Formats: sequence, structure tokens, C-alpha cells
Amino acid sequence: MSAERRTVLADTTPFPDDLDERLRAQLTFLVEVDRLKTVLRQSPLAAADRRENDAEHSWHLAMMVAVLAEHSDEPIDTGHTVELVLLHDLVEIYAGDTPLYDTAAGAGQYEREAAAAGELFALLPADQARRMRDLWEEFEERRTPEARFAKAMDRLQPLLLNWMARGGTWRTPGVTADDVRSRKAVIGDASASLWTAGRRLIDEGETRGWSRSGGSGG
Amino acid sequence: MSAERRTVLADTTPFPDDLDERLRAQLTFLVEVDRLKTVLRQSPLAAADRRENDAEHSWHLAMMVAVLAEHSDEPIDTGHTVELVLLHDLVEIYAGDTPLYDTAAGAGQYEREAAAAGELFALLPADQARRMRDLWEEFEERRTPEARFAKAMDRLQPLLLNWMARGGTWRTPGVTADDVRSRKAVIGDASASLWTAGRRLIDEGETRGWSRSGGSGG
Repeated sequence: MSAERRTVLADTTPFPDDLDERLRAQLTFLVEVDRLKTVLRQSPLAAADRRENDAEHSWHLAMMVAVLAEHSDEPIDTGHTVELVLLHDLVEIYAGDTPLYDTAAGAGQYEREAAAAGELFALLPADQARRMRDLWEEFEERRTPEARFAKAMDRLQPLLLNWMARGGTWRTPGVTADDVRSRKAVIGDASASLWTAGRRLIDEGETRGWSRSGGSGG
Repeated sequence: MSAERRTVLADTTPFPDDLDERLRAQLTFLVEVDRLKTVLRQSPLAAADRRENDAEHSWHLAMMVAVLAEHSDEPIDTGHTVELVLLHDLVEIYAGDTPLYDTAAGAGQYEREAAAAGELFALLPADQARRMRDLWEEFEERRTPEARFAKAMDRLQPLLLNWMARGGTWRTPGVTADDVRSRKAVIGDASASLWTAGRRLIDEGETRGWSRSGGSGG
């Protein structure tokens, strides 16, 4: 651990000195990730009048994998896919959430998040830090069927919340139904049937005036 | 589905009629479980000044399984254990949270939760409803190494949050450090090393005056 390590939550109430060193590192990481519960997303909850946070979102994606895995066009390992969605947003603890429709914020996003991953995962024992980093990169690069399905869930879940909110972030100024279709199309890389359903909800939302019709809003 | 089915969230913004029936049932369930984000627990967050909700808690347990599985005294399937913790509190959507130190509320808890499980899981296609019910019962009955480890995480996570809060629910009126040790002892059924660490935190908290010393407070 570098001498310039960021102050972490566990520093405020340090564990007893006689705790096993490996376990201390694991618990320090597990306390630090409590911060994911404070990273707010744009999506409105279906069950309450407030925005969702990253921990709730990650849990919801894991439930979706458990229920919707059968819709994957390629065979996937469900447990591995769940692991990817559980940790895919951890980097936002230090890098913050980047709204899907905010093109300016999207610039430099990967670099910010990669630096955050380095810092956060370094709290873990080295073997586990490497494993977490590998899983996060697998998700980002979408080079496995599991990563493609995980990404599809990450796009489908806010689509469901927007449907329930009769618009939600579809109403972001400057965003059109075409923008939504284009940002959500990666669902189709994992599942034709889920993308058919997702597109149906987007189209119906446009018909009902929950998003702005017309070409790309840029 | 019974004619007396409870009104669910998806009824407020029904999906288009032409959606595949099996997928519609799955999405109806996945929208309904958004309610888990509104079920408040007693535990204070480490990262913010508010109580934790069940979805955040369930996500945190899953992260703990991913990081701490090596401490299990018996070999466990990590993916299966994660699945157990992800859904273990779903029944609280209809049955509510029962605080660990509230003995009166504990009476009849299993019956209330079993009824809730029946109602909630019935939203799913029958094969998936059966599977969810089986997983929930496996967790409740602790008859597998995975269920015992999942239960240990369920007891260790609020212990960590109480440590970070320098007391938290350990300060519940009428609760003593002996009560805490006795409620947390199931951690030792899954992992001797984690229970050693957990007991160390409870003992140290008692020494520092974060819990009330002395015999059982009943």
C-alpha cells in the first residue's frame, strides 16, 4: 500500500491491531465499498419518489441476471455474470456516475474509471485486487458472452424504470427517441428477444409522448 | 395467477399487450422487487448519515461473499452463495424487516415471511417461482454450507456497520454485549476465523463502552 493512500472509511474507526492482516485488508475494502450506496444515478425508482443509487442498481441487475439469463443468445455462466454486475459500478465510488445521455461527461470516462479502479482495488490483498480488476475490464470490454449479457442488463434496467416513470431520463433535454434506441441497441448484442421487448417499450413510450420524437438530438 | 392477486407496481403502467407472456411475468416480478429498495433496516450506513435499505444490504452481502468466501470452513460454491444472499430478504417486501434484537417481532416471523414468499414468487413463471422458493428455504433452514455462509454474512455485515458507527444497534435499549455475542454466534457455524474476528470487534466495542456490559437483557 502506498504511503499516499487516500483516507478510507475504515481509517476513521480502525480495526483492532491484532486482526489478521489479510482479513483486515478485506474488511477495509468491504467497509469502503459502503460508499457505493451514496453514488446517485439519474434513474427514478419505481417504488419511491427518489433517484436510485449504485448499490441498489447493482443488486437489481443481479436479480435480473438470475431471472432473465435464459434469454441470452449465447450460453452464459450465471454466477460469473452476476459477479460482473455486482462490481461493474464500484469504480464510480471514486470516479462518480456518468449519465448515459451526457456526451461531454463521457469523454475521458474510461481513464477516470481505470484510475479509480486502481486505487479502490489496491485496498484488497494483491491476488484479489488483480481478480477484481480483470472482472471489471472483462465487463468494460464486453469480450465474453457474460460481459455482453451484463451490459445488456445495465441498459435494460433503467429502461424498465423509465417505462414505469412514464419517461424518466428519456425526457432529458436534447434527447430523442432515436438517441434512446441507439444507446440501448447493445442489448441486442446479448439477446434478440430482450432487445425486441426493450425496443417495443421505447417505441410505445415515443408514441405516448414520453420521449421526444425525431432524429438525433446530438 | 389468482384473481385476487395483490396490485403490483407493474399494474400502474402495464406493459404492452403484445409482449411475450413468460417475459411479461419475469418483468412484472423484476419491477415489483424494486420495492426492496424502500424496506429500511436498523443498521446505519458507514458512508452516510442514514439507515440502510434491504437492496443495499443484499448487494453488500454479495460483495462480502465474493471477497470472504475463502474463510468458509467447508468448500462452498460462491455463485450459489451469492444467489442466496441476493434473494434472502425479498420476502420483506411484503412482510417487512424484523429487527434482530426485537424478540416480540420475531414471533411468527417465519409464517409471515413464508406467506410473503408465496405471494411474491407467484408473479414469476411457475418453474422460476419454485426455484426461488427452494433457494429461500435453503437459506432459512441453513442446511447447506452455502446457506450457513450466507447467514454468516447476514450477521457479519451489520456487525461491521455497528463497529463503524461505534455502537449503532448495539445501543438498542435492553440489549447487552452478551446478547450481541449470542445473536452473532452463528457466524461460527460457517467460519471459525470470521467468528474470531467478529467476536474480537464485539469485545472491543464492549470495552470501549459502545454496548452495555453484563448478562442478557432479555
